[in-house]
Amino acid sequence: MTSWKDPEIAGVRALLAARQPGPGAPTPTVAERRAAMDAAGEIGALPTGCFHEPATLGGVKCERVVPHGAAPGRMLLYLHGGAYTAGSPRSHRPLVARLADVAHTVAVAADYRMGPEHRFPAAVEDAVAVYRALLDGGTEPGQLIVAGDSAGGGLALALALALKAEGLPQPAGFFVISPWADLTQSGASYRTKADTDPMITKAGLDTHAMAYLGGLDAHDPLASPVFGDFEGVAPILIQTGSEEALLSDSITMADVLAHARVEVRLEVWPEMIHVFHAWGGGLQAARRAIKLAGAWMDEKFAG
Amino acid sequence: MTSWKDPEIAGVRALLAARQPGPGAPTPTVAERRAAMDAAGEIGALPTGCFHEPATLGGVKCERVVPHGAAPGRMLLYLHGGAYTAGSPRSHRPLVARLADVAHTVAVAADYRMGPEHRFPAAVEDAVAVYRALLDGGTEPGQLIVAGDSAGGGLALALALALKAEGLPQPAGFFVISPWADLTQSGASYRTKADTDPMITKAGLDTHAMAYLGGLDAHDPLASPVFGDFEGVAPILIQTGSEEALLSDSITMADVLAHARVEVRLEVWPEMIHVFHAWGGGLQAARRAIKLAGAWMDEKFAG
Repeated sequence: MTSWKDPEIAGVRALLAARQPGPGAPTPTVAERRAAMDAAGEIGALPTGCFHEPATLGGVKCERVVPHGAAPGRMLLYLHGGAYTAGSPRSHRPLVARLADVAHTVAVAADYRMGPEHRFPAAVEDAVAVYRALLDGGTEPGQLIVAGDSAGGGLALALALALKAEGLPQPAGFFVISPWADLTQSGASYRTKADTDPMITKAGLDTHAMAYLGGLDAHDPLASPVFGDFEGVAPILIQTGSEEALLSDSITMADVLAHARVEVRLEVWPEMIHVFHAWGGGLQAARRAIKLAGAWMDEKFAG
Repeated sequence: MTSWKDPEIAGVRALLAARQPGPGAPTPTVAERRAAMDAAGEIGALPTGCFHEPATLGGVKCERVVPHGAAPGRMLLYLHGGAYTAGSPRSHRPLVARLADVAHTVAVAADYRMGPEHRFPAAVEDAVAVYRALLDGGTEPGQLIVAGDSAGGGLALALALALKAEGLPQPAGFFVISPWADLTQSGASYRTKADTDPMITKAGLDTHAMAYLGGLDAHDPLASPVFGDFEGVAPILIQTGSEEALLSDSITMADVLAHARVEVRLEVWPEMIHVFHAWGGGLQAARRAIKLAGAWMDEKFAG
C-alpha cells in the first residue's frame, strides 16, 4: 500500500473511495454518468466576478465563460473530458472558469458531439467548426489557446492535426491535462499504475473507446494523436499526475512531439491523479498547477 | 535536408560544420579534446560583476563562481559535461556563470575525476564529496541546487541516487541539460536524430563510455541513471533540444521519474541541439531556456 505525503490527495482519495458503488452494483448508464458529471460541476465555486452564458459557434452549442479582467482579444477554446461519452461545459465550468481567470482570457467551452450517439470523427469536426468560427469572428490565431482534459486533451491534440490537414493557422498554444491520446490503451502505465489510479481502468476506457469509435480504427491519429505527425504545430504544455493509468499517454505524446520538433513542456505532478486540477478547491497542487499553466498561457498570448 | 526556422541555430550549425576536421583527419586525442573545450570556455563572456576563484571542497578541486547580487545562503553545485572524459570548470565557466546569475546564487563547479585516468565511480564519489562538504560548510539542503549538462547531467542524476543510498538529504532540486543518462546508448534517437545532431554519435559515446567505465557494467544506475530507482528524490527540471541523438535519454528519464512519483518538468526546445545553452551569446533560445531555468531554480530555492 502506497502512503501519500500530501494529506490533501489522501483526502481526495478517501472521497473518491466513498463514492464508489458497492460490489455488485450495476454499471451506471451513459445518462447516469452524464448527470453525475454535470452535478459535480455545480459544486465548484466560480472565481469572483466570473459569469457564463450560452453561445453557438460554427453550429456547435458552446458556453462562454467570462472572468473578471479578461484581456481584450484573448480566447481560450476548452474541450472537456469524459471519455468522449460524457462531460459538458456544465460539468467543467469551475475548471474552465479557473483557467480563464489565471490566463486573463474569455473562454469558450464546446459542447461537442459524443458517443455513442455520434461516432468519431463528429467530435473532431465540432472542435474544428468552433475553432474556425472563432477565427471568422475576428479572433487572431496568436490570441487563441486550445485547452482540454482527458478525452478533451486528446481532442485538443487531434485538433492540432486537423488544423494542419485543413490548412488552418495554428493557435498560440495547446494546454492539455492528463490527455487520453491513445485509444488503443497500449500504455505501460495501465499496468504500472493500476494500483494507484483511483478512477481509470483499461477495461473502462476500452468500453468508452468502442462507444466513441463504433468499430472504427483506433489507430487513426484523429482518434489517437500518439500516432500523428505533429511537425509544425503550436507549442504544447502537458500536465499530468504521476499516479495515472494514463501517465504513459503523456510521456508518449512528449516523445512524439519532441521528435517532431514541437516546443513541448511536460510536467508530472507527484502523487497526483487524473485531472487533479478539478479538485482546485481542496488541493494546493491543483491550484499551483493551474497557476503555472496560467503563466504559460499568458506568455504564449504575449507572443 | 531539414531547413531551420530559427536563423540563429542555422548559424550555430554552420559554425560547427566549419570546425569539423576534414576527411581522414586523425581523431583528436583526449588531451586535444580537453584543450579545445577549455579554450572554448574562454571565449564566452561572463555576466558583469561576476568573478571566479579556485576552491577545494571535500578534497575535490572546484571553482567558485560568484555573480553580482547572489542571495546569501544559496548554492548551485555544477557538474560539467564532456562525456566523462573532458570538460572542466574552465570549459563551462560562462555557462555556470550565466546560470548562477539567473538563479541569484553562488555556484561551485566541481573538477571531478574523469576517464580514462579515473574509472567509474570516481566521478560519482567526487560529486558526493563536494555535496557533503557543502552541507558540512553550512549550506542548507533546501538552499542547494545541483545542475549539470550532458555527462554532468547524468552525473547529477547519479548523485540523486547516491544521496539516497548514503542517507544524505536531497537538495532543493536538480536541473539537468541534455543529460547523458544511458551509457548503453539504447535510445531510439541515436537513429531518429542521427541526421540532425551535429555533435553526438553513438560510436563516439560508446568510446567515451568505455573510457569511463573501463569495462564495468553500463547498467549500473550510478553510471546510467535511467536504470535507477528515483522514488523520494528532489524535483527535477530537464531541458533538451529536439535534434539531439540524446533526446531519448531525456524522454526515458522523464518516464522513469514520473513512474517514481518525482516532480519532473521536461522541456524540449524545438530545433535545438545538444547543450544549446552553451551558445547563449548568439542564440535567443538559449537565453530564454536559461531564464526559464533561473525562474524554476528561484522557485525551488524559495521552497
